[in-house]
Amino acid sequence: MISAYARLLALGKELQLVNDSAALLGWDQEVLLPPRGIAYRAEQMSWFSGYVHERFIAASVGEWIAEAESGLASEDPIAEANCREWRHEYQRATCLPTKLVEELAEARVHSQAAWAEARKRSDFSHFAPHLEKLVELSREHAERWGYQDQLYDALIDRFERGATARALGATLGDLRASLLPVVEAATSRPPYDRSRLRGDYPVERQKAFNREVAESIGFDFEAGRIDTAVHPFCSGMAPYDTRLTTRYDETDFLSSLFGVLHEVGHGLYEQGLPKEWRGQPVGNSVSLGVHESQSRLWENHVGRSRGFWERWLPRAVHYFPHLGGLSPADLYAAVNQAERSHIRVEADEVTYDLHILLRFEIECAIFGGDLAIADIPAEWNRRFESFFGVPVRNDAEGCLQDIHWSMGIFGYFPTYSLGNLNAAHLARAAKTQDSAVAKAFEAADYAPLLAWMRKHLHEAGSLHLPNDLVARAAGTPVSAEALVSHLRERYLDEASVS
Amino acid sequence: MISAYARLLALGKELQLVNDSAALLGWDQEVLLPPRGIAYRAEQMSWFSGYVHERFIAASVGEWIAEAESGLASEDPIAEANCREWRHEYQRATCLPTKLVEELAEARVHSQAAWAEARKRSDFSHFAPHLEKLVELSREHAERWGYQDQLYDALIDRFERGATARALGATLGDLRASLLPVVEAATSRPPYDRSRLRGDYPVERQKAFNREVAESIGFDFEAGRIDTAVHPFCSGMAPYDTRLTTRYDETDFLSSLFGVLHEVGHGLYEQGLPKEWRGQPVGNSVSLGVHESQSRLWENHVGRSRGFWERWLPRAVHYFPHLGGLSPADLYAAVNQAERSHIRVEADEVTYDLHILLRFEIECAIFGGDLAIADIPAEWNRRFESFFGVPVRNDAEGCLQDIHWSMGIFGYFPTYSLGNLNAAHLARAAKTQDSAVAKAFEAADYAPLLAWMRKHLHEAGSLHLPNDLVARAAGTPVSAEALVSHLRERYLDEASVS
Repeated sequence: MISAYARLLALGKELQLVNDSAALLGWDQEVLLPPRGIAYRAEQMSWFSGYVHERFIAASVGEWIAEAESGLASEDPIAEANCREWRHEYQRATCLPTKLVEELAEARVHSQAAWAEARKRSDFSHFAPHLEKLVELSREHAERWGYQDQLYDALIDRFERGATARALGATLGDLRASLLPVVEAATSRPPYDRSRLRGDYPVERQKAFNREVAESIGFDFEAGRIDTAVHPFCSGMAPYDTRLTTRYDETDFLSSLFGVLHEVGHGLYEQGLPKEWRGQPVGNSVSLGVHESQSRLWENHVGRSRGFWERWLPRAVHYFPHLGGLSPADLYAAVNQAERSHIRVEADEVTYDLHILLRFEIECAIFGGDLAIADIPAEWNRRFESFFGVPVRNDAEGCLQDIHWSMGIFGYFPTYSLGNLNAAHLARAAKTQDSAVAKAFEAADYAPLLAWMRKHLHEAGSLHLPNDLVARAAGTPVSAEALVSHLRERYLDEASVS
Repeated sequence: MISAYARLLALGKELQLVNDSAALLGWDQEVLLPPRGIAYRAEQMSWFSGYVHERFIAASVGEWIAEAESGLASEDPIAEANCREWRHEYQRATCLPTKLVEELAEARVHSQAAWAEARKRSDFSHFAPHLEKLVELSREHAERWGYQDQLYDALIDRFERGATARALGATLGDLRASLLPVVEAATSRPPYDRSRLRGDYPVERQKAFNREVAESIGFDFEAGRIDTAVHPFCSGMAPYDTRLTTRYDETDFLSSLFGVLHEVGHGLYEQGLPKEWRGQPVGNSVSLGVHESQSRLWENHVGRSRGFWERWLPRAVHYFPHLGGLSPADLYAAVNQAERSHIRVEADEVTYDLHILLRFEIECAIFGGDLAIADIPAEWNRRFESFFGVPVRNDAEGCLQDIHWSMGIFGYFPTYSLGNLNAAHLARAAKTQDSAVAKAFEAADYAPLLAWMRKHLHEAGSLHLPNDLVARAAGTPVSAEALVSHLRERYLDEASVS
């Protein structure tokens, strides 16, 4: 007789395969799909989610989970983690009526269009009724999912298992306090003269350079690709198929390079997940906050380091000969500039988390019932000016800049800061625990760093909850300390090791 | 209450959507998939076929079809065609045990690998046991599907509804008799000196030129793409998403151009199918023989005509200035050369059908029980020499050259010749029925030709069986006459209108 646990494994493998197929359709939509193909693609995507949802919420699945739980051996951490995640997912999936799921899916389509138009016009009022609707539907989701402390927690949990608004608030509050003086000092430094990098950067040469860098730091092109898309992203759509995208600016090679470094970080995590667990919850990446730690590690800790540019400037000159007169110190200065700017996605390493904190506080206020939708622009502008000392001139550069809310995604933003915190915490732990990692890092050899991440993070999949995983890997729970110290070193020249 | 017919329509729409998703996965496999992603992709493809097969062979579907048939109104050609095709497909799908379907799928994987190796070694004996197995399994399929005259008919029917070996044999026999003197004369003409076209053809310029041509003859790039792949093909994977591939040779722009013209022909047919019928049998392309007629129309009748090169040589010179000294007559001569060559896919318009006839006769003999697998090479070589007057030097340039048999595809080859016959028959009918088509054709304006094909072929979907469709469109059933007369005109200079 087939055990309930074996049945769950088989179902999981099948649904993973179906979800992976949908992931290819989603990737294609961003990268290749002809314009008139969009409506039909939406129908296809909706079929896939419906199919997987229906299969998973079957009563028999609930019975299998209960049976698997009761049959758990005392020393089987994999089965234990699988049961933990199946139970959690089943509980969250079954308490949503299909009607509600469909209503949200439909509202999102209209909302995204309204947001794009509102941003174009820089007029929040055009988007407000849609946002109202999405907040209301998300609130209903959260109520059904349930929470212990506050409703917003149920939304955060979708992206970061076990995280709560209270704990995030404490961490981000600490971060803010330590960060403000660094921001102050960093943004007061005279800016590097970027005109020294001026020149033509043909796309084909950028591609060749990026590929050389990505390959060198460990991205497996036999099991992955880099393509072009308006929004850079990474999709780990199959055990041996991880795809990144970036975009090209023919006047600035750093834009596509840092896009690639960021996405390669995500891609290395995807390529490092345990293949034999694929289709089991334990085989999944553990959370967005950990995923983002890997992208930030390669983008910021590696890509913006002195050693990186000592190693890679000569290759950059090979592809772009007009850079020949520059030194690694020039590039280091060019890629480490802080600025009090309005747009999150263009923000530097120092100010980035202030942008996140702002969004986190606004979301807390919305779901705490302390902020009406109509009051969002004023509140956004007030807080922005208090953080950055710069006024917001219009909604497009203010509360309309991000796509997330228009997609009904709330509770996602804080995972960006968790990523920054985790990246600094883990990078320091890797270098401290293993001096070979630190030594190789200085020489721009990142194989030991990757090996450390593979061993402590990637190969663990979702065996532990995100916070536990990071604490086990680093030896201590994450805090603001490592990130702040990293930024002080880099921006206040308090040391020259990063 | 929902009628059985409405249930079938809903099921068909859903399964079409699932099949269309699988089509994207299949396209991606040929165009983009990283090498190590292949094994998992095979699992995905197998899931899709299994899912669709299981849904369709359900007993309830059989009941719905019976009920829909008995409820047919007297004057409803669409419902009638749908019921005709559902019945046919259901009968063919339900008589196959899943075990047999799986056995064939597995045998194909091994067989394709063995064929690739055998072709590399030019050693048929390495492939023979696999071919034996595939022929045996195909025979079992055919026995289960059933046939009236001979077993081979059941295999042909998969690709060309209603065609039989007997009828095809008569048509292709006629064609052969008329063709041999044309081949003799055409291959005796002094060859055009192709060195006059020698030069560099950068891929990006080829792409731009091909796109300009494709767009001009009506391919909708808002609902389609052209990408690069080793094997040129066309996939109509959604109502507004038709994708072509071609390959590039930087020493010869004609190779990618004719690849594009051929696939654009397929693509125009896909883009012209009635959108509102998608998911119904009646909305499908009607057969391979008709599909191929559209690719051959644009590749041969249009692309190899004098008018085409009068119109397009100046644009070719724009992209490839070293062609500046040539005249349209040069290009016309260069693209219309006949040669007694061994490889089908490189064959010219005159000798192509002899290659097909050879394969058709061999398949007839295999499934008629008159030819043992081990004797295929000798029989192939004997027949080839009798058709072409040239000996076959090895298996790689003989019976191992095509991939089809290694995929378990038998009965497919004759549809290539049907395509050639239909193309000539339909092109002549369009020009004869509507003098505006003929007049515009001379001036390289193909909009009226496309409009005629849209109206008489594309928009009819599968309303009629393939032969009926062609006969209705052209006014007379297809015969060898139009093709032979077209080739005589073009190769024997008996007229200068084509």
